[in-house]
Amino acid sequence: MATINGVPVKSPVPLSSRMQTGRAMALDVWSVYNAANLPADCINLGQGYMNFPPPQWVKDAATEALGTVAGNHYSHPKGRPRLREAIRDYYSASYGRTLNVDNEILVTSGANEGQYAMFTAFLDPGDEVIMFEPYFDQYLPSVTFNAGTPVFVPLHPPSSANRRSTSDDWTIDFEELRAAFSPKTKMIIVNTPHNPVGKVFRRDELEKIAALAKEFNTLVMADEVYDCLVYDQKEHVRIATLPGMWERTVTVGSAGKSFAATGWRVGWLVGPPTLIGPVLAATTRIVYCSNSPLQEAAAAGLEQAPSRNFFPLQLQAYQERRDILLEGFDRLGMNYTHPEGSYFALLDISNVDIPDDYPFPQTIHGRGRDFKACWFIAMEVGVSSIPVSEFYGEKNSHIGEKFARFAFCKDTAQLKEAVERLQKLKNYLK
Amino acid sequence: MATINGVPVKSPVPLSSRMQTGRAMALDVWSVYNAANLPADCINLGQGYMNFPPPQWVKDAATEALGTVAGNHYSHPKGRPRLREAIRDYYSASYGRTLNVDNEILVTSGANEGQYAMFTAFLDPGDEVIMFEPYFDQYLPSVTFNAGTPVFVPLHPPSSANRRSTSDDWTIDFEELRAAFSPKTKMIIVNTPHNPVGKVFRRDELEKIAALAKEFNTLVMADEVYDCLVYDQKEHVRIATLPGMWERTVTVGSAGKSFAATGWRVGWLVGPPTLIGPVLAATTRIVYCSNSPLQEAAAAGLEQAPSRNFFPLQLQAYQERRDILLEGFDRLGMNYTHPEGSYFALLDISNVDIPDDYPFPQTIHGRGRDFKACWFIAMEVGVSSIPVSEFYGEKNSHIGEKFARFAFCKDTAQLKEAVERLQKLKNYLK
Repeated sequence: MATINGVPVKSPVPLSSRMQTGRAMALDVWSVYNAANLPADCINLGQGYMNFPPPQWVKDAATEALGTVAGNHYSHPKGRPRLREAIRDYYSASYGRTLNVDNEILVTSGANEGQYAMFTAFLDPGDEVIMFEPYFDQYLPSVTFNAGTPVFVPLHPPSSANRRSTSDDWTIDFEELRAAFSPKTKMIIVNTPHNPVGKVFRRDELEKIAALAKEFNTLVMADEVYDCLVYDQKEHVRIATLPGMWERTVTVGSAGKSFAATGWRVGWLVGPPTLIGPVLAATTRIVYCSNSPLQEAAAAGLEQAPSRNFFPLQLQAYQERRDILLEGFDRLGMNYTHPEGSYFALLDISNVDIPDDYPFPQTIHGRGRDFKACWFIAMEVGVSSIPVSEFYGEKNSHIGEKFARFAFCKDTAQLKEAVERLQKLKNYLK
Repeated sequence: MATINGVPVKSPVPLSSRMQTGRAMALDVWSVYNAANLPADCINLGQGYMNFPPPQWVKDAATEALGTVAGNHYSHPKGRPRLREAIRDYYSASYGRTLNVDNEILVTSGANEGQYAMFTAFLDPGDEVIMFEPYFDQYLPSVTFNAGTPVFVPLHPPSSANRRSTSDDWTIDFEELRAAFSPKTKMIIVNTPHNPVGKVFRRDELEKIAALAKEFNTLVMADEVYDCLVYDQKEHVRIATLPGMWERTVTVGSAGKSFAATGWRVGWLVGPPTLIGPVLAATTRIVYCSNSPLQEAAAAGLEQAPSRNFFPLQLQAYQERRDILLEGFDRLGMNYTHPEGSYFALLDISNVDIPDDYPFPQTIHGRGRDFKACWFIAMEVGVSSIPVSEFYGEKNSHIGEKFARFAFCKDTAQLKEAVERLQKLKNYLK
């Protein structure tokens, strides 16, 4: 019998078999560590959304669109012309080509739906999709719902002897990666900057991935939704710009990440017409089009970002947020990964001493040790985080069990308070 | 080789086979009759969107939400609590039960995505979905993308001798419907009020459909997005309220249709937990959640609608719009279907005399006679409409070829102008 959130359900008509795959009906990690289940004053560094609003001048464009007729009605399934033009004008330089608004840019209902539509457009039953572990948790069911088979390749974490490792110390074993490719491989997902590791893939790493994608004639889904959050003068390389890669790569972007507006559900895909065309056909049927007023807002954001120096200033603010959190980890004396990108940091929680008889909820029974650690930290310290084994297949989940993911897309006051609370963890270290 | 909008494309990696189904990659009818392809001053009665905005007091709630932090960030995949509560409070009476906001209501990214997610949740390869012709064109690829097989059953139009037939004269042959059911039938779609016929299914018709759904143990997707547009004191019956039907029915609603906001992409599903649960799991992966500010607006709309007497006043305005169009059809002396619901009216264009040597575009070659008629009318008269054979499978498309669909979700000034222009058609009647 099927279960919903662990509860058996009896439907007069059976679910589709795809709903039995990819943890589809399992209670997701976001619901386990939902604010409603935690102490009321718990600081939420779990889910990656901001506790601050998008810039006023970006929101103003949404209000302006609401004041028009067309801004409240259907957009073209490709996206509103103004937004596609703004994407072209803002991003063409980073692709080294003038993007064509008619067939190389596609606006989607959040980056998530764009990714889903790409799987719909290209996956046949049994097609394999390679993803690095830890992986953004939506990839797995999005692949299996579209009849694909996920193939996992772990990023290898730094030795835990190394207290201040960086995200660059999470490495790819290229022999292992090559072994994961097969004639069935249809696509590899390259998420850079990486959630949850914060890794910004180096050019030499991307070149080796690109060589394999070409050798095995696969597509690449380049999930670059955090491309505006690369710290420490690290170079963000788009794999689509490497030789021979444009024609096999779709790059994913996000207004939600770029403008602190995760609830707007506006994302975009960039790629060649041969790939964007089928994904357009898929998204047109899945959602028809993305919402209109917030597309106009995203357009205004990209249009005005250069003259307002918006992205460099935003990056500086995020770097400050990151550094508050990392300073707190330093004071704790616990190991962690210094992230070079994204708004996540991994804390090594393997030496947190969790009492055996702690009252854990039923929902985390049978899950990894990190599930217990995150629950314990939230209850005892008042800061929530997300257990990283959720982002692994079964085989490698022991790697993820060592880590908790903290999101630092929060204002500095909240982060400072979180960091002070976290110091209490010193009392619970082995 | 795959084609995109009729143009062959050579991708390094093949499309999924599902993209070769359900006219997925064909040029859709909306693109053929897109304003960009028609004379600049053509009045667009083709696609069903309004040339007027949503009410100011509904839009105000969107602006208010933009002014908050949470109103710009992720919503719960189930939908924002305020909107689910507003749906419960507004619609419970019409379902004869108090809807449970936790597991009987699901907010989706437009009604379209809600329907897609229901197919994802329930269709296995080879499962059959019965739909009445003419059908809303998105049903077909949404079913085939999810590995289902569409099964068509025509509504039978009135005899063309009858000039002023009503949508109630489009009838179901219940022996034909019974013959369409099989052990493979997973679902039947019941769209009432019906697009494009305007038919409001009678209680006795729904009872017979319900009996078949129970006999063959199938689900029902009740697409009732036009439920606020039922004219002439006709009774709108929800099939979900018939005996034994709640547990097998998901009913689809739409903020876009209800509040003249087709570009907001907010819809909702109502049904039992056993059906809503799996669809929630599907939509969570497809889009994660629907956009936040416009969910808040839809909530305000439903909250305030009763005290503002909004839906009865809106209905009156639509009835006035409908009657302007129908009066124009009457003066023309052409046959048409008087719609009892929705904002569409079908004009019988079989006696429009289309010159054989008229310069039709390549895009409509090989399509039905109605494609030519709609093009001819748009070019010669300056009013665009949609050919109805697009909403049929191959076998019955001859029925659709007799009709053009006109949308009357336009202000009265535009409809009056359209009606005057349409009188010119008298010069082209056989």
